Amino acid sequence: MTTALLDGLTVLEISSFVAAPLGGMTLAQLGADVIRIDPIGGAADQHRWPLAPSGASLYWAGLNKAKKSVTLNFRDPDGQRILTDLVAASGPGGGIVLTNAVGRPWLGYDQLARVRPDLIHLQIQGHHDGRPAVDYTVNAGMGFPLITGPEEYQAPVNHVLPAWDIACGLYAAIGLLSADRHRQRTGEGSRITLALEDVALAVTGHLGFLAEAQLAGTDRPRIGNHLYGGFARDFATADGERVMVATITARHFADLARATGLAGPFAELERLLGADFGTDGDRYAHREVIASLLAPWFAERDVADIERQLAGTSVLWSRYRRFTDLVGDLTRGGDLTRGGDPAGDGDPARHGDPADHGDRGGHPLIREIDQPGVGRVLAPGSPLVREGRPAPEPAPLLGADTAAVLADLLGLSAQDISALAERSVAGYDRAGGSRVTRPSP
Amino acid sequence: MTTALLDGLTVLEISSFVAAPLGGMTLAQLGADVIRIDPIGGAADQHRWPLAPSGASLYWAGLNKAKKSVTLNFRDPDGQRILTDLVAASGPGGGIVLTNAVGRPWLGYDQLARVRPDLIHLQIQGHHDGRPAVDYTVNAGMGFPLITGPEEYQAPVNHVLPAWDIACGLYAAIGLLSADRHRQRTGEGSRITLALEDVALAVTGHLGFLAEAQLAGTDRPRIGNHLYGGFARDFATADGERVMVATITARHFADLARATGLAGPFAELERLLGADFGTDGDRYAHREVIASLLAPWFAERDVADIERQLAGTSVLWSRYRRFTDLVGDLTRGGDLTRGGDPAGDGDPARHGDPADHGDRGGHPLIREIDQPGVGRVLAPGSPLVREGRPAPEPAPLLGADTAAVLADLLGLSAQDISALAERSVAGYDRAGGSRVTRPSP
Repeated sequence: MTTALLDGLTVLEISSFVAAPLGGMTLAQLGADVIRIDPIGGAADQHRWPLAPSGASLYWAGLNKAKKSVTLNFRDPDGQRILTDLVAASGPGGGIVLTNAVGRPWLGYDQLARVRPDLIHLQIQGHHDGRPAVDYTVNAGMGFPLITGPEEYQAPVNHVLPAWDIACGLYAAIGLLSADRHRQRTGEGSRITLALEDVALAVTGHLGFLAEAQLAGTDRPRIGNHLYGGFARDFATADGERVMVATITARHFADLARATGLAGPFAELERLLGADFGTDGDRYAHREVIASLLAPWFAERDVADIERQLAGTSVLWSRYRRFTDLVGDLTRGGDLTRGGDPAGDGDPARHGDPADHGDRGGHPLIREIDQPGVGRVLAPGSPLVREGRPAPEPAPLLGADTAAVLADLLGLSAQDISALAERSVAGYDRAGGSRVTRPSP
Repeated sequence: MTTALLDGLTVLEISSFVAAPLGGMTLAQLGADVIRIDPIGGAADQHRWPLAPSGASLYWAGLNKAKKSVTLNFRDPDGQRILTDLVAASGPGGGIVLTNAVGRPWLGYDQLARVRPDLIHLQIQGHHDGRPAVDYTVNAGMGFPLITGPEEYQAPVNHVLPAWDIACGLYAAIGLLSADRHRQRTGEGSRITLALEDVALAVTGHLGFLAEAQLAGTDRPRIGNHLYGGFARDFATADGERVMVATITARHFADLARATGLAGPFAELERLLGADFGTDGDRYAHREVIASLLAPWFAERDVADIERQLAGTSVLWSRYRRFTDLVGDLTRGGDLTRGGDPAGDGDPARHGDPADHGDRGGHPLIREIDQPGVGRVLAPGSPLVREGRPAPEPAPLLGADTAAVLADLLGLSAQDISALAERSVAGYDRAGGSRVTRPSP
């Protein structure tokens, strides 16, 4: 078994909500030691929905898996100083700070680089000039909501997946890894800023939306669930389900025509229209008539029948699932391998390398873990699979690692740590009981 | 001026569509030497929409900026051999292959690791078992389309932004950088697979959607443009626009109540309902009545007035823009700095470091570049900003760098390269003229 890819990397994360926590967790699931440092009592995302029946935030748990949690009183100069000390003490693979907190000088590059000249500091912010923004407001400005949803609909349709936050968090991980590479080669640190709006603008531009609007001077139409510049659409099935069917290449379309017994009618239609459905443009231009010919075939069949008839073809399709359907499919067979740190064990075998178990019924990415404060829940590991999949690990309880981190990195004694906790400069495991009682050996 | 973060990294990319090209381009925009190798004539994405008036693909150009382009005949064993030679010859920062092509043994890890035991090979695929999938079909299976769109709507609403492709491409960049770090520390290569469906499952799980459906046993409702577990929504304005308004914290909501003169009515309402709008749950539970109180305030004001009245508050909001509005806003002032490689120059000052010019009217992320085959278009650089922003560079013409790369990396002579081009084993710049005439010095 090889070591985890990011063994030896230490990241201090002062974060909230999606982007920064996802960036840190992405590195943690690849083996980095990611220490999320929160105010005592938690940051603004501590109780963010969705919630478990226990009241604990499934959102927070989901976005902080495999990290350590330290809590400090940031309003106390001693709490701020401990953060500085952690930056200084975090070893050759450390001195890396990821944050989305703005306007806090004690957390800024200038101050922290004094104790660590090779500091890598990545600041996530809303706009490039530092003004705040969130996924919902950035998305409104990007153009997508006004071309999303049914053709006849006029108002904007927001996405439910916070796609810009996701991309921003992953860009942050890329930025930290790139800066770490640069530091290893040159000894030089990096001060990086990453604006959520810039992420959205970059992706929008990379996909050609900006250049298209610029050169055409008009907006792409709202086309419902059709695919722009090709043929893909959803269809209703005989059993009340919906399926999405995509033909991205000429071969996909030819296979779909054959499988549905419509090769003849489509050839006839191509002759009538002077069209070639082997080309993206013609499939797109004639999408409505193509869809109207296909719709009865799907409407007459149930999903199982469709699956049989499209098997062995190149046609890309999927049933639309509800989240509950997805959970049902993931757990069907009831054979998800149990993984992660049983609550209270306190010594997870981090980044283990169990064999891929895709042949045993469950999906190999997903395990059921014991999430402290929540219970047993499905959790994904990293989608980056290298010679076996590390099992996902749970999120810590807020502050659970405060004592261990202060002992490990700063060499504080149990007495020192107790004193800090008594003064509410440092926090402790909110589940109670383990209040600063576990300095590591 | 410091060197680019990824100076010295060489990636060979055999790719198509969004995910793999975005992964490679993300590294290229940070300074890596990314060589996209296509079949002569281009891969399946060569003509993907949106198109420029010239017929060139804005999608391809957008996703391949700052790369080199080499074309080879992959059906010819000599073309396959040249790829192997490039893997072997790509230096200490090379031996890195990024691909979404499946089922081609000559491109697989096993074969390429023979010439480069420390090979880093990242294979993007649809499902974890290698079956194909695309963003449209993966998204259908994840649950989001059935909770997106107007509350009264029943059918699925697909996203227009291919969010899973985006995330997959960024995860790929993370995988390659992580494996490069591991190789530098241990000498050991990596064989990594990354399934688009796994990316979607991972993100869906990280955000708590899986655990929520599992523990609640029911699905989150479709709530239109409302925010789940908080208060955010779109509002119509007096000038026929729409704005998105988000209150993520108690302070946001209090500021919104004050700015709209509704602090009194909201306090009254809280008393009546026994609610506390400072909490996420109560703002969410009473979202309809909150929205109905706010709607007239927005309906009576135009966007400029709203901007004035919300200025200086913590309230997060944005006008909904069309893509053409966005382009207009980005170019307003007409002062976008020109950057990139003028067409035909052939010697771009790669990864230059012009000063940030956010104070000169345009958005600092966006420049107008000369894109060969397209003309002057807006293009974004990397959102990761480190001590000044490198200007975005254009995509190459298909095959434009074939001769230079074969000369540089394999030491082939101009005669060797001409002979390969005559036999159609290697390609050439499709713009004509420069057929294998530019072996680098």
